[in-house]
Amino acid sequence: MLEELKKKVCQANLDLVKHGLVIFTWGNVSAIDRASGLVVIKPSGVSYDNMKPEDMVVVDLDGKVVEGDLRPSSDTPTHLVLYKAFQNIGGVVHTHSTYATAWSQAGHDIPNIGTTHADYFHDDIPCTRNMKKGEVFGEYEKETGNVIVERFFRKGINPDDTPAVLVRNHGPFTWGTDADNAVHNAVVLEQVAKMAYFAVDINIAAQLKGMFLPDFSPKMNKLLIEKHYSRKHGPNAYYGQKKK
Amino acid sequence: MLEELKKKVCQANLDLVKHGLVIFTWGNVSAIDRASGLVVIKPSGVSYDNMKPEDMVVVDLDGKVVEGDLRPSSDTPTHLVLYKAFQNIGGVVHTHSTYATAWSQAGHDIPNIGTTHADYFHDDIPCTRNMKKGEVFGEYEKETGNVIVERFFRKGINPDDTPAVLVRNHGPFTWGTDADNAVHNAVVLEQVAKMAYFAVDINIAAQLKGMFLPDFSPKMNKLLIEKHYSRKHGPNAYYGQKKK
Amino acid sequence: MLEELKKKVCQANLDLVKHGLVIFTWGNVSAIDRASGLVVIKPSGVSYDNMKPEDMVVVDLDGKVVEGDLRPSSDTPTHLVLYKAFQNIGGVVHTHSTYATAWSQAGHDIPNIGTTHADYFHDDIPCTRNMKKGEVFGEYEKETGNVIVERFFRKGINPDDTPAVLVRNHGPFTWGTDADNAVHNAVVLEQVAKMAYFAVDINIAAQLKGMFLPDFSPKMNKLLIEKHYSRKHGPNAYYGQKKK
Amino acid sequence: MLEELKKKVCQANLDLVKHGLVIFTWGNVSAIDRASGLVVIKPSGVSYDNMKPEDMVVVDLDGKVVEGDLRPSSDTPTHLVLYKAFQNIGGVVHTHSTYATAWSQAGHDIPNIGTTHADYFHDDIPCTRNMKKGEVFGEYEKETGNVIVERFFRKGINPDDTPAVLVRNHGPFTWGTDADNAVHNAVVLEQVAKMAYFAVDINIAAQLKGMFLPDFSPKMNKLLIEKHYSRKHGPNAYYGQKKK
Repeated sequence: MLEELKKKVCQANLDLVKHGLVIFTWGNVSAIDRASGLVVIKPSGVSYDNMKPEDMVVVDLDGKVVEGDLRPSSDTPTHLVLYKAFQNIGGVVHTHSTYATAWSQAGHDIPNIGTTHADYFHDDIPCTRNMKKGEVFGEYEKETGNVIVERFFRKGINPDDTPAVLVRNHGPFTWGTDADNAVHNAVVLEQVAKMAYFAVDINIAAQLKGMFLPDFSPKMNKLLIEKHYSRKHGPNAYYGQKKK
Repeated sequence: MLEELKKKVCQANLDLVKHGLVIFTWGNVSAIDRASGLVVIKPSGVSYDNMKPEDMVVVDLDGKVVEGDLRPSSDTPTHLVLYKAFQNIGGVVHTHSTYATAWSQAGHDIPNIGTTHADYFHDDIPCTRNMKKGEVFGEYEKETGNVIVERFFRKGINPDDTPAVLVRNHGPFTWGTDADNAVHNAVVLEQVAKMAYFAVDINIAAQLKGMFLPDFSPKMNKLLIEKHYSRKHGPNAYYGQKKK
Repeated sequence: MLEELKKKVCQANLDLVKHGLVIFTWGNVSAIDRASGLVVIKPSGVSYDNMKPEDMVVVDLDGKVVEGDLRPSSDTPTHLVLYKAFQNIGGVVHTHSTYATAWSQAGHDIPNIGTTHADYFHDDIPCTRNMKKGEVFGEYEKETGNVIVERFFRKGINPDDTPAVLVRNHGPFTWGTDADNAVHNAVVLEQVAKMAYFAVDINIAAQLKGMFLPDFSPKMNKLLIEKHYSRKHGPNAYYGQKKK
Repeated sequence: MLEELKKKVCQANLDLVKHGLVIFTWGNVSAIDRASGLVVIKPSGVSYDNMKPEDMVVVDLDGKVVEGDLRPSSDTPTHLVLYKAFQNIGGVVHTHSTYATAWSQAGHDIPNIGTTHADYFHDDIPCTRNMKKGEVFGEYEKETGNVIVERFFRKGINPDDTPAVLVRNHGPFTWGTDADNAVHNAVVLEQVAKMAYFAVDINIAAQLKGMFLPDFSPKMNKLLIEKHYSRKHGPNAYYGQKKK
């Protein structure tokens, strides 16, 4: 059943590797068939190297395995909570991509400070709260979904406009209209997380300057600038071969 | 028309991918034919994967599409402002390359602190000012060109000597004598932005030391230095195979 | 003898290169045959380019070469100490992978701040103490093993639950049930070290804010956010080609 | 003449690209034939893409071109000063590799804080002083060599034990017994510069903690650690497929 969707979900999982978002088995993609309410998801702990569409597992929205010989991803309950709460989404991705995970580990929202971010995500990428003891030792993966949903609904963030979240001390989840779109958003999120990291670091340097550092940045001897610019571009340039 | 130029502009767009400056469709290259005043530019939102010369769009300096079935890049009005204001340039590139975009997001000029920078760019790479409400919700892309031009002319920066700019919270534009040269400058800008980022970070560490940190850097046990150097290079070296 | 194990150890050494953990000859893998008490290890200072199973060296737990024409890795005595002290391990890896080595050079444990870390390592990745003069100029490589073991046993860290260590000013060692598993742990350690580095840096930025910086991060003009989000997603979106 | 040496120098130049140390034409390698006192060096501003041994230029120690149709690298006078002052060296490399150049731009020696550094370089990698007006606008490239030599001889650093230098605001030079060895040292220098950068950054974080930050690093909920470790490794582990 859902053979077409299995192919797409399998390919989307492989695309995570192609885009450098996962190593080993550290990620998973699912997609939902809204008509039947069935979800196709990656099996747990299986290597990407020879993953095939028929390895995908089909579960219903209660998490019952409907088809497939393998266990579904251990993160399946998180995916299911998202499909139930966010009615317009068709695909969900979980990765531990480097920079998005670093922001998750730092426990901070990724500030919306660039048009690249705003092109895809309306708000800051929210980071979930600390989970409580009962949540961690209860239905952990389901509660992980719940803290995501809570973060969006309590703060009035529209999950269709900002299709990404950081789970605190864990890593990012993204979603989209289908599995492919969710993977696309995962790639964008990682790039946005990376650029925001460098931007924040540069900004701190600049702010520290105003506080107590005499200079924002190292200086170069002005003479060196003139020399280097003119030896390549000046009337007596001598870098490179003679112009013919 | 302009079939040769279309080939060059198409190739220059693909070179952005080759040099790792763009992902997905996040960049665009154009070139101008000064004789006819026509500009060849990448179509908007089209994947680089199977982009062909005939997909390029030809527009006049007022932005009217003269040839091509696709919409031109949404950044076309910015390119046109640059061609009109900077009379010597033949090609324009826009990317969201990681480090140059980070400096843009931080809102700071890239300081000219290295000869690599000075070999290509005479001045600091300037970052544009915040745009006003009327500019953002008016002819946004045209006004983006205007704040670039304003930054160069108000500060007396020669765009031929410093063929790059950072648009605040957005990303870099570079230009050059033709499309290829503009791409070359985009590659150099990204490398210059990267090295300046690390240099500024090292410099802050060194300055903080003078302020209140007892040491600039971690120390290594001097004995370890002697041991490791001598086990490879000393008279009784035992690292590697016996010399024959 | 131990031809199967030699193949595995040789392949595991080559896998270090494939995973980007070593350059030149900067790493080594060994495995133990617990039945015979013999250890198979990479030869010292031999290039990975044409390393073959028959180049592997067989030593006993006292370090005596039992088979092989080449000298064993100069780090062999460290491996042997680990096999003797940690009874359940079957393979040991030493690399100078970038981020794990940076933490070693900084002299700090890698804090357990992410589920990715906790999935593989129960505790912080411990960093060993400074070595004393007698240790450095005595049996240096053996003493390197001793300071590792001391760090685990003195602090009650279980080496089976936390199969990695940072040798101060030197670099990481990992271990596992066999050579492959030890390599796997080396790859995970490097990724964990990398993400922790970025997370710590982001966190400092956030903490400095509370201390004396007016803002955690640069801000983007809110208008730009609305503009960019709406030109791609709004009712009058004009980015990309017309929807058919 | 010196056809063998030309092949080696040409290959060594191409190896700079292979090791990711240069982009475009930003680097050069030379080697000396001590018997004849002749130096083989890369031509200036020529692309690496189709560089051939016969493009190499032969100069004497006074910089006179003895053979070759192309101009020698504009950095030739720097190389010649090094060959004259450092009598044991056979090859010289100049790059603008990212991290080594960042340290140069920051104007700081790279501290010897790791055994990887000590395996190859006995001392901190020294950074030269600011050049004076007469030096910059006089025989600039020759004076660049002179400030390198001055830094080694004034401080009693042995160039054979520490075959690398940072030219302030410029970039690294390395040398070695021949061209290959000098390239090898350039690769090591870049890796050492990279690891030292991250180590210094981690160390500052740790020191700031002692000064005024309440914590060195973000914390993870201890419960999460137990949960994640046990769901993969505990008696009731449910991550991955059932063990057969």
